[in-house]
Amino acid sequence: MKTKKQVEVASGASARRGLFTKRVTLSLVAVAMLVGVATLVTVAADSDKDAAPIFVKEIPPGYRDWKVVSVAHEAGDLNDMRAILGNDIAIKAYREGKLPFPEGAIVGRIAWSHVPSEENNKTFGRDQSFVAGSPTDSYLQFMVKDSKKYAATGGWGYSSFGRDGKPTDAASMQSCFPCHQAIKSRDYVFARYSP
Amino acid sequence: MKTKKQVEVASGASARRGLFTKRVTLSLVAVAMLVGVATLVTVAADSDKDAAPIFVKEIPPGYRDWKVVSVAHEAGDLNDMRAILGNDIAIKAYREGKLPFPEGAIVGRIAWSHVPSEENNKTFGRDQSFVAGSPTDSYLQFMVKDSKKYAATGGWGYSSFGRDGKPTDAASMQSCFPCHQAIKSRDYVFARYSP
Repeated sequence: MKTKKQVEVASGASARRGLFTKRVTLSLVAVAMLVGVATLVTVAADSDKDAAPIFVKEIPPGYRDWKVVSVAHEAGDLNDMRAILGNDIAIKAYREGKLPFPEGAIVGRIAWSHVPSEENNKTFGRDQSFVAGSPTDSYLQFMVKDSKKYAATGGWGYSSFGRDGKPTDAASMQSCFPCHQAIKSRDYVFARYSP
Repeated sequence: MKTKKQVEVASGASARRGLFTKRVTLSLVAVAMLVGVATLVTVAADSDKDAAPIFVKEIPPGYRDWKVVSVAHEAGDLNDMRAILGNDIAIKAYREGKLPFPEGAIVGRIAWSHVPSEENNKTFGRDQSFVAGSPTDSYLQFMVKDSKKYAATGGWGYSSFGRDGKPTDAASMQSCFPCHQAIKSRDYVFARYSP
């Protein structure tokens, strides 16, 4: 059985322990909050760095199996030849003439350098044949329809990948939307479907 | 009993009958041969008319959904832009680098006129952009692998269709194989796969 003194000492010890526990708890909360804030800051910094909200950073899987929307040729500095492809949602909308494109639609384009084909020219007997050479600096580009996520850029998220499959710098992607705004009347998509 | 004269006459008659028989037989053979030749001529004429043995007269169903092999641009008189497509058998062989192409492989190409895009040029701020216009005179072409059926033309049957979807004239298709012979080393297929 404990004496009164022993009880007081015990109570004092208990109170101190309680205070200590409270302090530790508060400190842990503070640390947790700081860690939380730090995490948020890091995420925000990453977002700014990688321009996350309007740019898509993943190459849509299976894009190389998509159906053809059309083909194009950019002369001048770009000097490329292009296949414009669409995922099933995009192709369906194109074929049905539906605008705006439905959620989930993705339009992509592959660009290869526009090179003369000696092989073909020799067979034709004249210089007239150009074929797809190596992938260009902006090898792959996609626009992904998600009206909520990409509300700031007309409902489309834009992406561009170099020949190494890595996203091109954010600066180069800043030009996507301002340019596509010119074709707002066709839901920001330049490429028409070729039958 | 026959007199010598009778025998001589009889012999003469017999000889004449023999000669007659021979003549009839020869004539029948000649007629048969002529009929035969006529038949062959008719078959040949039909072949030419329908271009049956080496030309394919049906547009392969579902070709517009096929995957992209590559793109090309023929300048000069053709002035077109092309998407080269392959059915699943052809695409698999292309991706695996398999030659010769397996039975059932079909390689097709769609050709649209190569036209400047005012819309795009306005946005780019310079004249550099060409897009696919209307289908050309030789809108669709296919080569179908069937080593037995098309043995005479390297194992490939050739076809060409105008913008109305009807086979182009046999004369224009006569040039397919002589031209494709130049690329016998790649199983007669000019188009390379673009990654």
